[in-house]
Amino acid sequence: MSTHRFDVLGLGNAIVDVIAPVDEEFLVKAKLRKGAMQLVDEAQAQWLYDAMGATTITSGGSAANTIAGLSSFGGLGAFVGKVASDEAGRAFAHDIRSVGVHFATPPAEGGPSTARCLVLVTPDGQRTMNTFLGACQNLTCADLDAADLAAAKILYLEGYLWDPPAAKEAFVEASRIAHEARREVALTLSDVFCVDRHQKEFLGLMRDGIVDILFANESELHALYETADFDTAVAALRQENVLAAVTRSEKGAVVIKGAETWEVPAAPIDTLVDTTGAGDLFAAGFLAAYTRGEALDACARLGALAASEIIQHFGARPEVNLAQLAGQSLYLRGRGVTPQGV
Amino acid sequence: MSTHRFDVLGLGNAIVDVIAPVDEEFLVKAKLRKGAMQLVDEAQAQWLYDAMGATTITSGGSAANTIAGLSSFGGLGAFVGKVASDEAGRAFAHDIRSVGVHFATPPAEGGPSTARCLVLVTPDGQRTMNTFLGACQNLTCADLDAADLAAAKILYLEGYLWDPPAAKEAFVEASRIAHEARREVALTLSDVFCVDRHQKEFLGLMRDGIVDILFANESELHALYETADFDTAVAALRQENVLAAVTRSEKGAVVIKGAETWEVPAAPIDTLVDTTGAGDLFAAGFLAAYTRGEALDACARLGALAASEIIQHFGARPEVNLAQLAGQSLYLRGRGVTPQGV
Repeated sequence: MSTHRFDVLGLGNAIVDVIAPVDEEFLVKAKLRKGAMQLVDEAQAQWLYDAMGATTITSGGSAANTIAGLSSFGGLGAFVGKVASDEAGRAFAHDIRSVGVHFATPPAEGGPSTARCLVLVTPDGQRTMNTFLGACQNLTCADLDAADLAAAKILYLEGYLWDPPAAKEAFVEASRIAHEARREVALTLSDVFCVDRHQKEFLGLMRDGIVDILFANESELHALYETADFDTAVAALRQENVLAAVTRSEKGAVVIKGAETWEVPAAPIDTLVDTTGAGDLFAAGFLAAYTRGEALDACARLGALAASEIIQHFGARPEVNLAQLAGQSLYLRGRGVTPQGV
Repeated sequence: MSTHRFDVLGLGNAIVDVIAPVDEEFLVKAKLRKGAMQLVDEAQAQWLYDAMGATTITSGGSAANTIAGLSSFGGLGAFVGKVASDEAGRAFAHDIRSVGVHFATPPAEGGPSTARCLVLVTPDGQRTMNTFLGACQNLTCADLDAADLAAAKILYLEGYLWDPPAAKEAFVEASRIAHEARREVALTLSDVFCVDRHQKEFLGLMRDGIVDILFANESELHALYETADFDTAVAALRQENVLAAVTRSEKGAVVIKGAETWEVPAAPIDTLVDTTGAGDLFAAGFLAAYTRGEALDACARLGALAASEIIQHFGARPEVNLAQLAGQSLYLRGRGVTPQGV
């Protein structure tokens, strides 16, 4: 079957981001690991919320951000993730559907509230995330729609799904269904501490053929291969049977497949405001181009462009139409990137 | 009594802003008056919410934005406004308290939900606002704390309070209490259509000595004096017994008192993103300097600086510490503005 209804179906934690600027001292006092995502329980989340400043609230969730970004590029996206029947859950559903993403996962009735990520942004634009998983813990195999999975060119999975125990099974089952339909499966490593928690299992996912495409940033790759050296990590990555897209912040991105390498520089920005979502949006641009059959360096460029938009404002969902942005981008000009889908 | 606990006490509608970018066509299709604030009922609000794109949610409310801005400048602020006992109401209370503002109005139990303003931002940075007043309709004289009112140098009232019927009485009663304590009372005209709705009463407020200080933008002033000519409106304004601060967007601001005039240019910006809150934050900066006894042109400059920050991002609450911004501002340098309170 080569027919498809979706370019990418994302499976991930459905999260609402609650964002506030903080100073460096706040992180020290609250004993938080800067730049990381840590899991918190409801009481810790409440304590942090009370301590943090005035907030900006937007829909988030790593894979959800990627699919929203893909949609903004004109790609056809679907998302599977669990919210609760509360105000935050309704806002999440509104936001992802409003950008044209198919989202049909029924909300959990009762149980914990919709997941919140308290995002603390320091003046250097770094974000420190504190996630209360809430209703995400109710995502199970029962939430998978086999027809939808089979109808998407790419299944995109976030490493964070390894955190809520039941979601892990949904992850593996979704990959099985997608592969049965001869689709490709992508994984993002999500976060360096997420890799620390699940390193052996993530390596297993590649080596057991459960994932075909890997998204990672430099630190995550170092954690995956337990090395502080980028070249060592890349050498190890070349041995895996995956297509890998590695982001390196201001150093750009590199795509690796076996012995082959494609490199692109970072897209220029005016002011770094909040790095939340940089990796998610890189994946969005990459997959938007990849599912249109573009060259791998063109895919990486479209990813880098999307990342450059997201880090210049609060929140991890694009504030402008990315297809339009791509059409006007000097960074893409003459690089063989099709700005918009047909 | 010259002792005070607050520099400014604001009385206004307690509103949560739900912001989304839209194209010009959206406004035409939805038959909305661009740049204006219109009142909507709950059903219209739901219809618009369903039709609009992915949102960013922040606390808003005109006077509340002003008091939050004043606090960011190091001023002592208090706010009186009515929320409901719901998620949005708790977010509003968190956000205003988190920036150091005294907010003690009890939430309404039962009745309509916390007020929402659906803010539609067009690519030119203009905002079109659609307000469901909700719990604001429950603000009454019973919510006024006479001791707090007497303890604030300035009572700041928003014209929008003329929309929910009961709030009007609270407005007049608050002014009476403040004047009894020999405090000054300020009014912002809020919005051109708000002036259209309540023009005679707003003129009466000045002429009856209920307000001493007036904040307005150019269009609001035109509506107040039913003229299309700025000089005609200013000439009329000079006859009122008020100190008036008039904002003129990129043309800067002018302060008028009788025959006297003080003018300042607009503060420079990089990119206009969303004009929501420009007037509110002008008032914040103006009053921060005014309550420190600064010269009127210095007050207007601090106002213009605050406005320049707010229009460069979504939302009407400052994203940076305004006292710090003032300390670093070339626009203020050598202009006799004290960057921060003591």
